Amino acid sequence: MIKYSNGKSYSPKQIKKTEDKKTVSLKRHLSSANRGMDLEEDINASNEYYRERDLCLITKRPTPINIVKVDYSKGAIITNAYFEKQSTTDYNGVYKGRYIDFEAKQTKSKTSFPLANISKHQIEHLKKVLKQGGIAFFIIEFVLRDEVYLLDAKYVIDCYENGDRKSIPYEKFVEVGHKIKRGYAPRLDYLPVIEEIYGKN
Amino acid sequence: MIKYSNGKSYSPKQIKKTEDKKTVSLKRHLSSANRGMDLEEDINASNEYYRERDLCLITKRPTPINIVKVDYSKGAIITNAYFEKQSTTDYNGVYKGRYIDFEAKQTKSKTSFPLANISKHQIEHLKKVLKQGGIAFFIIEFVLRDEVYLLDAKYVIDCYENGDRKSIPYEKFVEVGHKIKRGYAPRLDYLPVIEEIYGKN
Repeated sequence: MIKYSNGKSYSPKQIKKTEDKKTVSLKRHLSSANRGMDLEEDINASNEYYRERDLCLITKRPTPINIVKVDYSKGAIITNAYFEKQSTTDYNGVYKGRYIDFEAKQTKSKTSFPLANISKHQIEHLKKVLKQGGIAFFIIEFVLRDEVYLLDAKYVIDCYENGDRKSIPYEKFVEVGHKIKRGYAPRLDYLPVIEEIYGKN
Repeated sequence: MIKYSNGKSYSPKQIKKTEDKKTVSLKRHLSSANRGMDLEEDINASNEYYRERDLCLITKRPTPINIVKVDYSKGAIITNAYFEKQSTTDYNGVYKGRYIDFEAKQTKSKTSFPLANISKHQIEHLKKVLKQGGIAFFIIEFVLRDEVYLLDAKYVIDCYENGDRKSIPYEKFVEVGHKIKRGYAPRLDYLPVIEEIYGKN
């Protein structure tokens, strides 16, 4: 019996059977310190996968940084700077000529996604994207469920502005959202979901 | 007679007549130290003008910075970082649902635009944008002529990859490119040029 750090014990046979699904999940639980980065890394890796194969071209916007001081004596080392708030969303790009724009979020809640996770700036930005006819959505991970959903921005904005709740229940994601498959390559295959939802219009 | 710092003298009447055109030009020549920033500032100001009026949504990508050290004792001050090369172009966004992507360049030459100003990464990125059906172009300023042109990326890429010259002659910009009007607001009205060139297809 092999004891995993989640406290459970498995026989080698059990491990082999469940390996595909559980190993990925276990690896995520084990590296809880890095959990915040998993979703971003998965999306970046998928974007690279798509880029190499010319399936679409979507990239993460660099974090805006306000530079106070640069030391030019040894090249150009920034010695004083601070993080600025992103006034847009984290990801954008192009797919079949259409503009794609989305924000990636995570929640440790199993029952709902807190709308406080979204800043007003991001809502304003996505509204303007929609006004210009762009494709806009959220990719939201329920970390403890190891499930990732794509949810159209119109729906999220409506909840944010007109809803009487401070969160979107998990059930709504199942009902209105689209689950994104996790795998080896690409790690988070969200492009087929975009094609499915937005492909015809 | 009022003597300007360019050595010329003008009567008040002459000043009034030529003020609209010349004042803007003089201001640019006078602030030669900031000239490198003029084009970027003009584009950013125009983007803000367009954004406020919901005409389009185009923004400058933040410069990617590689962070080595952050001092968390007083908030989060970055104390050691360096500039990374932009792997994409500087500007992208959406107009009528279409993905827009462009790079802004300047040249002090009056006779041609040196292709060495463009990095291979930018060419590769724009090729991929075109492959995905996005709208891609260059905004190029002939600083000493105070003229700004929009030139489609396909043309520039062709010169870069297949041309026998190391530069694009000014005459080609006049022939194949589109001059962008400079003004008060927006400072560089490039959106009507996009509509004119790409509006029907």
